[in-house]
Amino acid sequence: MFETVDTPAVLIDQEIAERNIQRYQAYCDKHGIALRPHIKTHKTREFARQQVMAGAMGITCQKISEAQVMADAGLDDILITYNILGSDKLKRLRALADRTKLSVTADNRFVVEGLSRTFAAAPKPLTVLVECDSGARRCGVTTPAEAMELAQIIVEAAGLSFGGLMTYPAVGGTEKVETWMREALALCADAGIDCGTVSSGGSPDMWSAHLAPVVTEYRVGTYIYNDRSLVAGGVCRWQDCALTVLATVVSTPAPDRAVIDAGSKILTSDLLGLKGHGHVLGRDDLSILSLSEEHGCVTSSEGATRLTVGDRVRIVPNHCCVVSNMMDRVNLHRGDNLEGPRKVAARGCVI
Amino acid sequence: MFETVDTPAVLIDQEIAERNIQRYQAYCDKHGIALRPHIKTHKTREFARQQVMAGAMGITCQKISEAQVMADAGLDDILITYNILGSDKLKRLRALADRTKLSVTADNRFVVEGLSRTFAAAPKPLTVLVECDSGARRCGVTTPAEAMELAQIIVEAAGLSFGGLMTYPAVGGTEKVETWMREALALCADAGIDCGTVSSGGSPDMWSAHLAPVVTEYRVGTYIYNDRSLVAGGVCRWQDCALTVLATVVSTPAPDRAVIDAGSKILTSDLLGLKGHGHVLGRDDLSILSLSEEHGCVTSSEGATRLTVGDRVRIVPNHCCVVSNMMDRVNLHRGDNLEGPRKVAARGCVI
Repeated sequence: MFETVDTPAVLIDQEIAERNIQRYQAYCDKHGIALRPHIKTHKTREFARQQVMAGAMGITCQKISEAQVMADAGLDDILITYNILGSDKLKRLRALADRTKLSVTADNRFVVEGLSRTFAAAPKPLTVLVECDSGARRCGVTTPAEAMELAQIIVEAAGLSFGGLMTYPAVGGTEKVETWMREALALCADAGIDCGTVSSGGSPDMWSAHLAPVVTEYRVGTYIYNDRSLVAGGVCRWQDCALTVLATVVSTPAPDRAVIDAGSKILTSDLLGLKGHGHVLGRDDLSILSLSEEHGCVTSSEGATRLTVGDRVRIVPNHCCVVSNMMDRVNLHRGDNLEGPRKVAARGCVI
Repeated sequence: MFETVDTPAVLIDQEIAERNIQRYQAYCDKHGIALRPHIKTHKTREFARQQVMAGAMGITCQKISEAQVMADAGLDDILITYNILGSDKLKRLRALADRTKLSVTADNRFVVEGLSRTFAAAPKPLTVLVECDSGARRCGVTTPAEAMELAQIIVEAAGLSFGGLMTYPAVGGTEKVETWMREALALCADAGIDCGTVSSGGSPDMWSAHLAPVVTEYRVGTYIYNDRSLVAGGVCRWQDCALTVLATVVSTPAPDRAVIDAGSKILTSDLLGLKGHGHVLGRDDLSILSLSEEHGCVTSSEGATRLTVGDRVRIVPNHCCVVSNMMDRVNLHRGDNLEGPRKVAARGCVI
């Protein structure tokens, strides 16, 4: 299986990725939702371009460094869903805004003040959305009233243009998004503030995005590759998983135990609530019980693993986004045909 | 705190790292144990050289790609503690052996056969140690009798030289190493096989290495930086931790909850049996409760976090080795004095 690819390696089935892009774009088109994919999953220039070519209105990034890579690749409508602060980052943000259509989010006055200072003298205002916590308990103002207050501050701030509301909901939180955002919109309307965009997201609930009609824009990352967490959540099937890890059995110390050359340095320790560290395609009986950095320990529900040193396995990881970040290059293929390596241009962009 | 370093960032206190190198070298010298540090923790050329300059007999790597980086940096006695197989890797191993003193481990006949085929016509034989499972249940032959049998196969194999026995013990397994290895040595002696080296390792039990006098060589990685797992295990103190992650508070959605800009893309999801994702220096009350890729959620045992947007914190991660692998560069300092960036030359070497 892909004998010319040395292991461990990340494989991307282009055919599946393209199908995933098309299928969700069609869903969004059908429901009149603007799609703004998050590039954190693939971190490649080529897939970002393909997402936009397929109909996405633009892309989402999490850090300025990611957005810089994407702007260099010609992407020209980028939302950074992150509170940006600190003089270095603000300087880079300002430079980036000069060469691409850029928007950001903020959930507090301190961040808005920094953005305003930075863009007060800019040729065009920076679009800022208010990040709202509709239940995920990460970032975001915690009540619709606070959302309206921060929107008001942005409206009045020099150099900024209020872009609307944004949330990253909890899994299963579609209904909550609808009520939360409706309330915030009503408060904003009462205050004479127009909320252009209501942006929600998340792959786990991607097929119920239309059940929150308040949402005008949906951000989704994992959908392009899919992973074990989304299969477990009923969002997709194994045959929809574009990213797999190719590994070799390097040791079979006992009949009931095999060791593969993929450890946490490629599969990562992300569990996302699952047991074990990935699904071995075609072998439902196998579990990747534990990982160290360069080893994965495999057992079978049937007792004997029936694996031999030198065997190759393909693994759907628990969480594909973090796997993309572990590798400088991935290996593209279409079904059984290998196409070659692709640089993960935005790998390691944490700043 | 290090205002010129943008966050999130990895900081390495050189003074602490050098002290850790010296201290454990002194322990090994005192007990007559040869030290062979594992470079997986720092992955830098400079620290590998410093370890050897301090008295280490050589270094340990886990993959050929790591060993290639270290050979390029002039390191010339490298043990790769991994079953190496596959034509690409064997070709690279052969090339590497031509330019540095190299040894590897094997725990099965299939791997030994591949090594033998590769080195049969080499100008000098490749040294191969038998990997033994003394209780960690990862790789390794599972009984002393199997160790002797594989040693015999190596002794008889063309192109190979039998180098001795190697184990990566379970935590708390020092006593088990002693009895396991004594038994294997006795069986080898009966068969007329001389075991030159008995190599053990592991930072959690580094201070009891001398309690297994059968061990001639000790491999230790984490000791150079230390981390939260080793503090929890009583191996070191917070002031012995050389690697920290510098992060900024980007959001305080509620008084009892703050969000920092360090997530699993820098701290990783490794738990090593701990709760939470790192220790905030100087703030014993804080817990890093959960991570997403670019966010860490912080709570306090006192209720209010007393953190403000823009505050900086320094975090000792659960597991320092995996953090080194997330960054292209780390920032060196000595106490409060910043020294500059250093390339993590062997980052991402999984092949």
